[in-house]
Amino acid sequence: MEPSAAALESIRAINATAAFNRWCGLEVVDAQPGSVTIAMPWRDEVGQYSGFLHAGLVGALIDTACGFAAVTLVGRVLASHYAVNCLRPAVGRRFVARARVVKPGKSQVFTACELYAEDTEGEKLVATGETLLLVVPGTAGA
Amino acid sequence: MEPSAAALESIRAINATAAFNRWCGLEVVDAQPGSVTIAMPWRDEVGQYSGFLHAGLVGALIDTACGFAAVTLVGRVLASHYAVNCLRPAVGRRFVARARVVKPGKSQVFTACELYAEDTEGEKLVATGETLLLVVPGTAGA
Amino acid sequence: MEPSAAALESIRAINATAAFNRWCGLEVVDAQPGSVTIAMPWRDEVGQYSGFLHAGLVGALIDTACGFAAVTLVGRVLASHYAVNCLRPAVGRRFVARARVVKPGKSQVFTACELYAEDTEGEKLVATGETLLLVVPGTAGA
Amino acid sequence: MEPSAAALESIRAINATAAFNRWCGLEVVDAQPGSVTIAMPWRDEVGQYSGFLHAGLVGALIDTACGFAAVTLVGRVLASHYAVNCLRPAVGRRFVARARVVKPGKSQVFTACELYAEDTEGEKLVATGETLLLVVPGTAGA
Repeated sequence: MEPSAAALESIRAINATAAFNRWCGLEVVDAQPGSVTIAMPWRDEVGQYSGFLHAGLVGALIDTACGFAAVTLVGRVLASHYAVNCLRPAVGRRFVARARVVKPGKSQVFTACELYAEDTEGEKLVATGETLLLVVPGTAGA
Repeated sequence: MEPSAAALESIRAINATAAFNRWCGLEVVDAQPGSVTIAMPWRDEVGQYSGFLHAGLVGALIDTACGFAAVTLVGRVLASHYAVNCLRPAVGRRFVARARVVKPGKSQVFTACELYAEDTEGEKLVATGETLLLVVPGTAGA
Repeated sequence: MEPSAAALESIRAINATAAFNRWCGLEVVDAQPGSVTIAMPWRDEVGQYSGFLHAGLVGALIDTACGFAAVTLVGRVLASHYAVNCLRPAVGRRFVARARVVKPGKSQVFTACELYAEDTEGEKLVATGETLLLVVPGTAGA
Repeated sequence: MEPSAAALESIRAINATAAFNRWCGLEVVDAQPGSVTIAMPWRDEVGQYSGFLHAGLVGALIDTACGFAAVTLVGRVLASHYAVNCLRPAVGRRFVARARVVKPGKSQVFTACELYAEDTEGEKLVATGETLLLVVPGTAGA
């Protein structure tokens, strides 16, 4: 199997085991060694007061995509720190998070992500974020 | 009505209008001018791969509590930036986020939050975070 | 004067007025509307315990470059929040920070930056960072 | 020697070996297991355009105090990530950073810090920040 096909299969398997990801309807669109794209459809339950995507879910998409990107290069990881920039109200029919590894390492992995809102007019950058992940000891060579 | 009773009523009303907060079962436990406590019960759907609270929901609780704390002092707000430190696996029967305003302002509000996991043995600090909010123009005096 | 020549002249003038920037030997290498590159030579006084560039100066370079990038598009700004990822020990003869505006706005500007260390073997990415700046009211149209 | 006297001696020794700290005139005021206070006098060379303390030095003080606080509990550390909130213009005769360990660990340490500006009228909180540090392998028991 090609590296990207193997990465996609592996990330999809992990995604299927996380209850919250299933509730969100998270889909793994693409996975390459070092980068992953995930998507989530809009529905009313993911909204905040004004009908925008809840900022907590903006962060959940970014953190999840970053974690998946890390997993394509190292073993198991746990998020230590993540940060989210809300650039614009997150309004759309579907949200796409594209994450990449900025710097892999034996003990920690630095990642970054852009979140786009899709609409009839195309896609728009609505948020950026980054996650610093700790490699779970003993899994680094996986 | 006392300031804290008015704050509690006002924050509970806002909480009730956010679809995602209702799905989470978010409850506003306390509200004072400048600080708010919210809580969310554990259930399987909020978990990630290992059965811990999903890091995205860790952030959602922190960001929501911070926003509520800001609203007790200024008008309407939108989160610009938030950051989350995952100190320990978030495992418990119930999660309690305590947020406070660090510095209010006319155009922006700095807030900080601690997230605790409750268990039969008591509560444990599992995450910290902070949110920088922009005051929606024209609402600052509210 | 072309936009980039005007931007360069303007940013160099601001750089010359900041005492700490002069002490650092900060040089404005390039300025375009929305992006700025600055550089600083290594010298012993900018080191920490191990002879790496002090993490505080890593942040100072990132924050300064981000602020300059913002100023090319809006009026006067003040940093509200900045964050720094130290990817590798910052060791080199010269440090180059390349910042760009991610999202300009009337009240706040989101920026991002990469910091490179230059050596005889070329340049290496040693840190990334981001700054959220508040536009000083009344200067936005400048 | 008492733990706090030993911590103070040890942190002062480290502070003396960092060239940039010496240039800044950084003084270690207090050190306890898990918390450290440092101070720096104002002088013109630490200013930015408006005569406030340069935001880069705001971060340098926070990052340095956080690193020292970590060192009182674990072995050698390197900053992975730090973030700075600039609450108010940093204007004063002297700046005092008080850092504490939020969560120590074998591989990483979470810290937080407040920065105060001292004046004839007392001290004022001007910035907050946090640093996530990686413990240098093989030094954790030190």
